[in-house]
Amino acid sequence: MQRGVIDSAKAMIFQTFSEKLDIEHFSSPRFNASNSTFRIADLGCSTGPNTFIAVQNIIDAIMLKYQFPTQQTHNNPTKNTAPEFHVFFNDHVDNDFNTLFKNLPASRLYSAAGVPGSFYNPLFPAASLHVAHCSYALQWLSRIPPGISEEGSPAWNKGKIYCAGNEEGVTKAYFGQFQADMDAFLKARAQELVVGGLVVIQIPGVPDCAGVISEEKMDSFNFPLYMPSSKEVETVVEMNKCFTIEKTCTLSNPVNSKSGPLVVEKTSASIRSIMENLMRDHFGSENMDQLFHLFAQKLQKNQLLYENAIRKDVYLFVLLKRKGNF
Amino acid sequence: MQRGVIDSAKAMIFQTFSEKLDIEHFSSPRFNASNSTFRIADLGCSTGPNTFIAVQNIIDAIMLKYQFPTQQTHNNPTKNTAPEFHVFFNDHVDNDFNTLFKNLPASRLYSAAGVPGSFYNPLFPAASLHVAHCSYALQWLSRIPPGISEEGSPAWNKGKIYCAGNEEGVTKAYFGQFQADMDAFLKARAQELVVGGLVVIQIPGVPDCAGVISEEKMDSFNFPLYMPSSKEVETVVEMNKCFTIEKTCTLSNPVNSKSGPLVVEKTSASIRSIMENLMRDHFGSENMDQLFHLFAQKLQKNQLLYENAIRKDVYLFVLLKRKGNF
Repeated sequence: MQRGVIDSAKAMIFQTFSEKLDIEHFSSPRFNASNSTFRIADLGCSTGPNTFIAVQNIIDAIMLKYQFPTQQTHNNPTKNTAPEFHVFFNDHVDNDFNTLFKNLPASRLYSAAGVPGSFYNPLFPAASLHVAHCSYALQWLSRIPPGISEEGSPAWNKGKIYCAGNEEGVTKAYFGQFQADMDAFLKARAQELVVGGLVVIQIPGVPDCAGVISEEKMDSFNFPLYMPSSKEVETVVEMNKCFTIEKTCTLSNPVNSKSGPLVVEKTSASIRSIMENLMRDHFGSENMDQLFHLFAQKLQKNQLLYENAIRKDVYLFVLLKRKGNF
Repeated sequence: MQRGVIDSAKAMIFQTFSEKLDIEHFSSPRFNASNSTFRIADLGCSTGPNTFIAVQNIIDAIMLKYQFPTQQTHNNPTKNTAPEFHVFFNDHVDNDFNTLFKNLPASRLYSAAGVPGSFYNPLFPAASLHVAHCSYALQWLSRIPPGISEEGSPAWNKGKIYCAGNEEGVTKAYFGQFQADMDAFLKARAQELVVGGLVVIQIPGVPDCAGVISEEKMDSFNFPLYMPSSKEVETVVEMNKCFTIEKTCTLSNPVNSKSGPLVVEKTSASIRSIMENLMRDHFGSENMDQLFHLFAQKLQKNQLLYENAIRKDVYLFVLLKRKGNF
C-alpha cells in the first residue's frame, strides 16, 4: 500500500518541486557545486525499499528543477556541476537500522546516514536540511492520548478493546494529541530547514467532513494512530506560523487504481509488520503467531468488507515551504 | 585496552587541537553560529562506549579552542554562540548499528547519525567534514594481501596457520596492502574534509627499527591486520600529498601504566569480540565456544608471556591537517 502511495506521489513531487523549490543558495548564479551539499531527510523511513524509491524520486526532481547536467557522485566530486546529496534515513531507535543499511542501493549516487530518534524532536543541526520527507508516518502519534485509559475521564475508552467511533471525548483526545504532535514536528523541522527548504508530507487521512468514522477505521484506535482530514492538517500548519502551504491534495488510492483482489496472506503479513511490535507490548509475544493466523482467516472471510473499507481511505499530500525569519 | 588508548589520547587531543585547529570559517570574526554546523566523523566506531568518549573529548577540545561560551544544544539553537555539532558514527555495514544507536548517550549535546560502509572509500560529500577521528581501526586492512594463499607466490604463507615472522615476502605483501589501504583512506578524507580540517589517527603499531617481529605479533597474520611503525605511517602520508603532519607520537601503553595483573576471562572475551567474526568465516561457527574456552586456558597458563608481549606494544598518535587546494 505504502509503495502505491509513493508511486502516486512521484508525479506530484516532480510537478510541485519544479514550481516551488527555490533555495537561494542553489539557485544563485554564484553557486559553486564543488563544496555544496544538498541534504535530504526521510523521516520514518523503516527499513526500505520504499524509502529508497522516495528519496530517489526527490533527488531526480531536484536535479530536473535546477537542470543540473548529471548527478554528482561522491567518488567524483570535481567532475560535474551538481551538488552532492547527503541523505539521512530516520526512524525510531528500535527500527532495524542494520537491515536498512544492508538494503541501501549499491548503485546510489548519494552519501547515506541513519538517524535514530523520534521525529517529534529535533534530529539535525539548525538550518542544515534542504528537504524533509515524511511518508506514511505522521499518523503514528507520540503516545496514546491522555485520558484514554483513565476511569472517569471524558476520553475514557471504557471496557472496549477498540473504539466504536461515536464517542466525542475519545475522538477529541486523539485529535488533540495529533495536533500537539504535528506542531512539535513542524517546530523541529522549522529549526532544521534552511529558509526556502521544503517539507513533503504524505499521510493516510479521512475525507473532509467525513461522516461517522467507520468501524474498521476505529479498530486502529487501540494504537497511537490518528488519520486527519486535510483541513485538520492545514489548521495545525497555519497555527505553527513557520511554513507556507504550497500544495495540498489527495492522492489516488493505489487499491482503487489497481485491479486484482486483495491478497490475504500479503495483507496480513503487511499489517503484522506494522502492528506486531505494538501488540506484543500489550498482549505478550507468545500469542502473536496464533493471533495473526486467526486474523488472516477473518480477513479471508470478510474480504469484500475489508476491500470496501480501504477503498474509502484517502491519502493526503502536503507540501510546505519554510518561511524566512519569523 | 582501546579505552586505555582513548584516555591517553585525550590529553594529546586537547593539546594539539589547541595549537593546530584553525578552520577559517569558525575562527572568522564574522562567524555566525546560528546556522553553522561543525561536523565530526568517528571512523570504525564499533558499538560504543569508546566512540562516545572519544567524540566527547574532541568536542570538548574544540569548544575550548574556540572559547565558545557554552555548548549549543540542538533543542536550543538560538541561545548560545557555539556552532552545533553533527557527529557521524561510521563502521562496516555489518557492524551492529542497532546496538550503537541504543547506546547513544541520552545526555549528548550533538546530533548523531550512523554511516555504514568501509572508510577506505569516501563516505561523505566533498568538503563537508571538519574533523575525522579513527582510533584502533586502521590496522584492519581491506583484505588479506594478494599472494598470501597462492602456491608459488613469494608471499605464499605455506602450510602455516600463522606466520612465524621472518618471511620477507609475507611481510612485504602485508605492508604493501597497508600502504594501499592507508592511501585510499587519506584520499577519501582529503575529499571530505574542508581545508584546515583535521584527521586524528590512533593505531597500534610497532616501534621504529623493530627487530624480528615477535611470534605473538605474527599470530595476527592470519587476519587482514597490520601494525605499522610511525615511520611507515609518515611515508604513506607524505606520498599522498594532501595533508601536513602536525604531530606524531606514541601513547603510553595503558597496560604498562596501570597496575594489576591481566584478567584472563576479560582478555579472552575482549579478543573473542574482535576475532570471532573473522574466525567463524574460516573455521565455521560450531567450534567457537570450545575454541575460546581452550584459548582462555592457554592464556591462563602463559599469562606472564602474554603480558610481556603486550607490554611491548606501541600506540601511535598521528594528527594530520588538510592542505589547501592541491
